[in-house]
Amino acid sequence: MLIVMRQDASPEQIEEVVRVVESKGCQARSIPGGDRVSIAVLYNKGALEEAWFMDLPGVKQAIAVTRPYKLVSRETKPEGTQIRVGNVTIGNGRLVIMAGPCAVESETQAMTIAENVKKSGGDMFRGGAFKPRTSPYSFQGLGEAGLKILAKVRESFDLPVVTEVMDLSCFDMVEAYADIIQIGTRNMQNFSLLRRAGEAKKPILLKRGMSATIDEWLMAAEYIMAGGNPEVILCERGVRTFVRHSRNTLDLSAVPVVQRESHLPIMVDPSHAAGFRDQVMPLARASAAANAHGIMIEVHNEPEKAQSDGAQSLYPNQFETLCRQIRAIEGILKEK
Amino acid sequence: MLIVMRQDASPEQIEEVVRVVESKGCQARSIPGGDRVSIAVLYNKGALEEAWFMDLPGVKQAIAVTRPYKLVSRETKPEGTQIRVGNVTIGNGRLVIMAGPCAVESETQAMTIAENVKKSGGDMFRGGAFKPRTSPYSFQGLGEAGLKILAKVRESFDLPVVTEVMDLSCFDMVEAYADIIQIGTRNMQNFSLLRRAGEAKKPILLKRGMSATIDEWLMAAEYIMAGGNPEVILCERGVRTFVRHSRNTLDLSAVPVVQRESHLPIMVDPSHAAGFRDQVMPLARASAAANAHGIMIEVHNEPEKAQSDGAQSLYPNQFETLCRQIRAIEGILKEK
Amino acid sequence: MLIVMRQDASPEQIEEVVRVVESKGCQARSIPGGDRVSIAVLYNKGALEEAWFMDLPGVKQAIAVTRPYKLVSRETKPEGTQIRVGNVTIGNGRLVIMAGPCAVESETQAMTIAENVKKSGGDMFRGGAFKPRTSPYSFQGLGEAGLKILAKVRESFDLPVVTEVMDLSCFDMVEAYADIIQIGTRNMQNFSLLRRAGEAKKPILLKRGMSATIDEWLMAAEYIMAGGNPEVILCERGVRTFVRHSRNTLDLSAVPVVQRESHLPIMVDPSHAAGFRDQVMPLARASAAANAHGIMIEVHNEPEKAQSDGAQSLYPNQFETLCRQIRAIEGILKEK
Amino acid sequence: MLIVMRQDASPEQIEEVVRVVESKGCQARSIPGGDRVSIAVLYNKGALEEAWFMDLPGVKQAIAVTRPYKLVSRETKPEGTQIRVGNVTIGNGRLVIMAGPCAVESETQAMTIAENVKKSGGDMFRGGAFKPRTSPYSFQGLGEAGLKILAKVRESFDLPVVTEVMDLSCFDMVEAYADIIQIGTRNMQNFSLLRRAGEAKKPILLKRGMSATIDEWLMAAEYIMAGGNPEVILCERGVRTFVRHSRNTLDLSAVPVVQRESHLPIMVDPSHAAGFRDQVMPLARASAAANAHGIMIEVHNEPEKAQSDGAQSLYPNQFETLCRQIRAIEGILKEK
Repeated sequence: MLIVMRQDASPEQIEEVVRVVESKGCQARSIPGGDRVSIAVLYNKGALEEAWFMDLPGVKQAIAVTRPYKLVSRETKPEGTQIRVGNVTIGNGRLVIMAGPCAVESETQAMTIAENVKKSGGDMFRGGAFKPRTSPYSFQGLGEAGLKILAKVRESFDLPVVTEVMDLSCFDMVEAYADIIQIGTRNMQNFSLLRRAGEAKKPILLKRGMSATIDEWLMAAEYIMAGGNPEVILCERGVRTFVRHSRNTLDLSAVPVVQRESHLPIMVDPSHAAGFRDQVMPLARASAAANAHGIMIEVHNEPEKAQSDGAQSLYPNQFETLCRQIRAIEGILKEK
Repeated sequence: MLIVMRQDASPEQIEEVVRVVESKGCQARSIPGGDRVSIAVLYNKGALEEAWFMDLPGVKQAIAVTRPYKLVSRETKPEGTQIRVGNVTIGNGRLVIMAGPCAVESETQAMTIAENVKKSGGDMFRGGAFKPRTSPYSFQGLGEAGLKILAKVRESFDLPVVTEVMDLSCFDMVEAYADIIQIGTRNMQNFSLLRRAGEAKKPILLKRGMSATIDEWLMAAEYIMAGGNPEVILCERGVRTFVRHSRNTLDLSAVPVVQRESHLPIMVDPSHAAGFRDQVMPLARASAAANAHGIMIEVHNEPEKAQSDGAQSLYPNQFETLCRQIRAIEGILKEK
Repeated sequence: MLIVMRQDASPEQIEEVVRVVESKGCQARSIPGGDRVSIAVLYNKGALEEAWFMDLPGVKQAIAVTRPYKLVSRETKPEGTQIRVGNVTIGNGRLVIMAGPCAVESETQAMTIAENVKKSGGDMFRGGAFKPRTSPYSFQGLGEAGLKILAKVRESFDLPVVTEVMDLSCFDMVEAYADIIQIGTRNMQNFSLLRRAGEAKKPILLKRGMSATIDEWLMAAEYIMAGGNPEVILCERGVRTFVRHSRNTLDLSAVPVVQRESHLPIMVDPSHAAGFRDQVMPLARASAAANAHGIMIEVHNEPEKAQSDGAQSLYPNQFETLCRQIRAIEGILKEK
Repeated sequence: MLIVMRQDASPEQIEEVVRVVESKGCQARSIPGGDRVSIAVLYNKGALEEAWFMDLPGVKQAIAVTRPYKLVSRETKPEGTQIRVGNVTIGNGRLVIMAGPCAVESETQAMTIAENVKKSGGDMFRGGAFKPRTSPYSFQGLGEAGLKILAKVRESFDLPVVTEVMDLSCFDMVEAYADIIQIGTRNMQNFSLLRRAGEAKKPILLKRGMSATIDEWLMAAEYIMAGGNPEVILCERGVRTFVRHSRNTLDLSAVPVVQRESHLPIMVDPSHAAGFRDQVMPLARASAAANAHGIMIEVHNEPEKAQSDGAQSLYPNQFETLCRQIRAIEGILKEK
C-alpha cells in the first residue's frame, strides 16, 4: 500500500497516518518528494483495505501495491502446474481440446457427439447435466440421468468428462461422476461453492465471472487452493462489455496475463464468448494462437434442435476442421 | 420474435423458416417489405431462442420482441406491489430508509449504530452476519451470533432487520431471524438459491448483479415469484463499467425503467455503488430524487475501525443530515 | 510513480531501475519491504510513462501516483472557478439551468421553446446549429442560419446561448455568435479543436467523452487552459456501458469526484444520458440532488416532430414542473 | 422498424401509430399476435428514429430492424473490396503486415526500424508525424519533418507508408505524403474529418472508436464512401471495458462480424489493444488466426527510449519471430 498525501498535508496529518498504519501492525515509511509526501506501508500480513486510509485528513489517495493472492501466484510457485486427468495432462505444453454439447439431452445425442469428438481428436468430453438458466421456464438439465450418460461416454470412448456443478446440494453427486468439476461464470464468486470445491478430490475448472477482473478470478481460485485442492484450471469465457454483436467479448489478453501472474493452467471457451457459430471458429483458432493451455468447444450433431445454446454449437464437420487447424497452430508455436 | 431475411433470400429459404417456426408450435406470418421479407413469430408460449433461427439459410437477424418475464411484469399486474414488514410498508409511496453497518461486528457496535439509525429516522436496520468476501483471508462474518444480535436490535429498537443469505446451507437459519432476506449481487444468478427463496415465508431483497441487464434481473425475480414467493424487493447497487473513480457506476435510470416494466418495488444502495464516503451522500440524495421506493445505506459509529467496507460507511452525524435531506426531497416529489 | 520489483529481483536489477529513473531526470528512492523492494520516483517534472519501467528486468509493476493535470487541479487553485455569462454565473452556488431543443430547426420553433424556457425559470438557452450525426443521411443542422436564430433568442429573451462547435472550420463563426461554446462528447479528445478552444474568448462547455475516464476528461480541459482560456465548464452526459435500457449510463459520482479534484464547475446533461423522456425527469432531479453546478435539458414544443433526439426532449409542461422541483431540491441542499 | 404495442393498447392507439408511420412516408402493416399487436414499418427510405414512435400512447417498444448503412454493406456489394497500394493489395486474401514505430522520432530511428520491417517481411511502414496525445505536455510529433522522413522510407525500402491525420488543417499535407491515411480512434466520429476523407484520393484506414459499436463504425465508413472515396480499410484496435490488465480489450469477434456485414477489408492493431509488449505477440497471432485481412504492429529499435507507447512496441527480433509465425498461421488458414 502506498498512501499519497495532499500537497498541503500538515506534519500532524502525516504523523497521524503513520500512527494508523502502525496500529494495523504494519510499518510506515515516509517518502518526501518534490510536491508532496507519500507513505509506504510495509510488512503487511493480511489484506490491507485502501478504505482504512482514504479518509484520514490530508490523504489524497491510497494505492494497493501488492496482489492479494498468495497460493495461486507464480511468485509463490514459479513452475507451471500440470493437472493429470486419465491420460490427459493440462498445462504440460500440449493444448487440450474439451468438446461436447452444452447440455446432455439423451444417451443417443451424447454418444453420437462423443464419437465425433473422439474421432476428430478431442481430448475430453464436456456436457451439462445441471444447467444454470436465466429463465425458470427453460430446460434445466437431466440431473443424475445426465451424469450417468457422461459416465457411459467416458467408458465407451475413453474420454474424461467435464461437467458443471450448480450448488452445494448436488456437489457430492457431480464429484462422484465427473473427472473435472466445472464452476460456471455465475458461480465464480459463490464463495460457499468455492469452499466446497476446496475439499473436492477432483480438479476444478473455474470459469471467469462475466465481469470479473483477473485479480478477483485469481482470488476465487485462491479460495479453492486455500481449502486444500491444488488442482484448479482457469477458463476465460468472455466478459460483458458494451458490445452487442457477440454474446460476450472474449478477453484473450487474459491468457498471457494469467500465465505471468499465476502457475495455474488457463483455457479458453470461445463458444460462450461468441454466442454465434460463425464467430466460434475464428475465436477458437485465435485462442490456440494466443497460447492457451486448452480450449473448450460446444459441438452438437443437430444444433438447430439443441435445447440450449444451439446457435453457438459447431457442426461435427466444422469441429473436425477446427481441430486440424488448432493442432497445426499448436505446432507453429512449438517451433519458436 | 421477428425474423429478418436477407435481401437475396429465396422463396424456398423463406418457406423453410416458416416451417421451422411452426415446428416450434408457433405461427409464422410473412411480411413483405420494400427491400426484404420479415417473418413475425406469433403465439409463442415458452421462451423462444434467437439461436433457433439465426443460422437458417437466408436469415439476416432474429430479434426478440416480447420480454421473457411474466409474473414480475407490470403488464401482468398493473398496480404496484406493496410489501409490509412490521410497521413498515415498501412500495406504498413512502420512501423506506434501511441503514446499518456492512457487517455485524459485536453487540455493542450493532446496538450503538441501531440507536443512531432509529433516532435519525431510519425505518429498518441492515447488517451482515454472513459476508461474501473476495478474499478467503478476510473477515467472513459472525454467523448465527450475528443473527442473534440482529434479533436483539429488532426487539430493542422496534426496527425490522435485513440481512444477507449466502447459500443454501444457512438459508433456514437466516430465514428464522431476518425480517427481509437479502440476496447479494454475486448471487443474483445463483439459481438454486433463487429457487429456495421462492419457498421462503419472508420477503426477499434481490440486489442487481454487478453486470446484469434489467431483463436478467427481472428474470431472477421471476424465479422467486415462480417458486411461490410474491414478495420481492429489487435493489439497484451499481454496475461494473470502465469507470475507476467509484467502486461501481450507479445506474439510476434503472429506477424509472423497473417502475415501468414491473410492479415490484425498487430500492437503491448508493453505498456499494460509490465505495467512498464522499460520494455516498450525493448519490443517496440522487436516489431519493429519482423516486426510488427506498434506499439502503451503510452507517458505522467508527468507520475507520470497520472490518469491512469502512470507507463507504457514513458517520452517524452524516447519516442524520442525509435523512433530513432525503425526507425533504421526498416531500418535494409528493407535491407534484 | 512507484515501481514495484519482483520478489526475486536481484540487486543489479534494482540498480538498473534506479539508473533508468535518474536518466529521466528524476530521483529514485528505494524502499525495502518485507517481501520485495519498491522504488519511488520523485521530483518528476513532465509526464512519466509507466511503460518506461514496466519492461525492465525484475520489475513487477509501475504505478502512476500523481495526477497528470496541473492547471485544472484543485491543488493548484483551491477555490472554485466562477464563470460569468451575461447575468448568469456558473459555479457560484446557484444551480444554472440551460435548456432548449437538440437542434435549432426554425425561428418559430426556437422562439416558442425559448419563451417557455424563460417563463419556467431557465437561465440559458441551448440549441445546435451544427449537429454531429452518426449517419451522413441525417439532418445536419441549419449552420449559420441557426446561429442567427440563436442571436435573436438571446436578444428577445435576455437568455445567453450555448451551441456546439463541430470543427476548426466553423469555430470563428460559432465563437462570434455563442455565449458559451460547447465541445461535444465525440470531440472531447479532438486535440486540434481543444487547442483552438484554448484561444477562444468565450467560455467552453466541455462534455465528457462517451468512454472517457475523469483523468482523460480533465486532461482535455487542461489542453484548453494550457492554451490560455481559463473558462472551462465540465458537463457529465453519461458513459457507454453494457446497459441497454438507456442510451448511456449517467455517472453521477463524477460530480463529487470532479468537485474534489478540480476547481472547474461541473454540470450534468441527463437528456443525452437517458435517451428516453421518462428517464429524463428523475435523472435531472437526481443531478440537482447530487449538487451539480448546473443542468442541461432538452425541451421541445413538439418532440414528436423534432428532427433529432425527439424521444428525449421534455414537453414544455414537464420542463416547468422539473424546474420547480429542481429549485426546491437546490433549496434543501443550501439549508444543510 | 417494428413497433410493439402494449397488451392493453386500444384500437384508437393502434390507428394513431399507423397514422404517424404513414405521415413519415412509410407503410404500416399491423400484425395481430396472441397477446398484443405489432406494427411493421415498411418501405422506409431514410433513417427512422425509434424516438418518433416510442412515446405514442400504447406503444411498448420500437425496434430498429434494418441496418442504417448502405454503401458499406455486403448486401449492396457482395464481393470483398480490394485496395491496392503500390505493390501491396489489401483484401485479396494475403494478410498484410504494417509495422513501424508509434511516432517518427528521427530519420535514423525510422530508417533503422524500416530496414528491420522490410527484412522481416513486413509489407508497409507505419509511423506517426502528428500524434494525438492525452496530455498537452507530451511529445506531439515531428509534423511535416516526420512526413518527409516517411517519404524517404518509402523510397529507400519500397514500403508504402501509413500515417495519421489529426485534423482538417493538416489533411492536405498528410494526403500529399501518405500512401494510406489513418484516422485514429478518437477521430472515428469526427464527422468533418470523415467528410474531408471522402474527398481524398488516397485510401483511408479507419480505426474503430474506443467505444464504438460496429454499426457506428460502419456508419463512419459510410460517411467516407458517401463522400466519394470507396477505399476504406477498417481497423479493430480494442475497446474500452472494465478490464484493467490491458490498455483496451481486443474485440476479435469484430473480424467475422465485419466480414459478414461489409465488403470492406478489416485489419487488427493488437499493439494499442494490449498496451504491453508481452501481450502483443499472442494477440497478433490471434488476429491472424481470426482471419483478419491485415495486422498493424508497433516495432521500435529501442522501445525503452521511445517518445510514446514504448511499452507496447516489439523489439526487432520479436517482430521477426512474429512475422514468421503469422505467415505460418496464414498458410494453415489457406489450406482449409
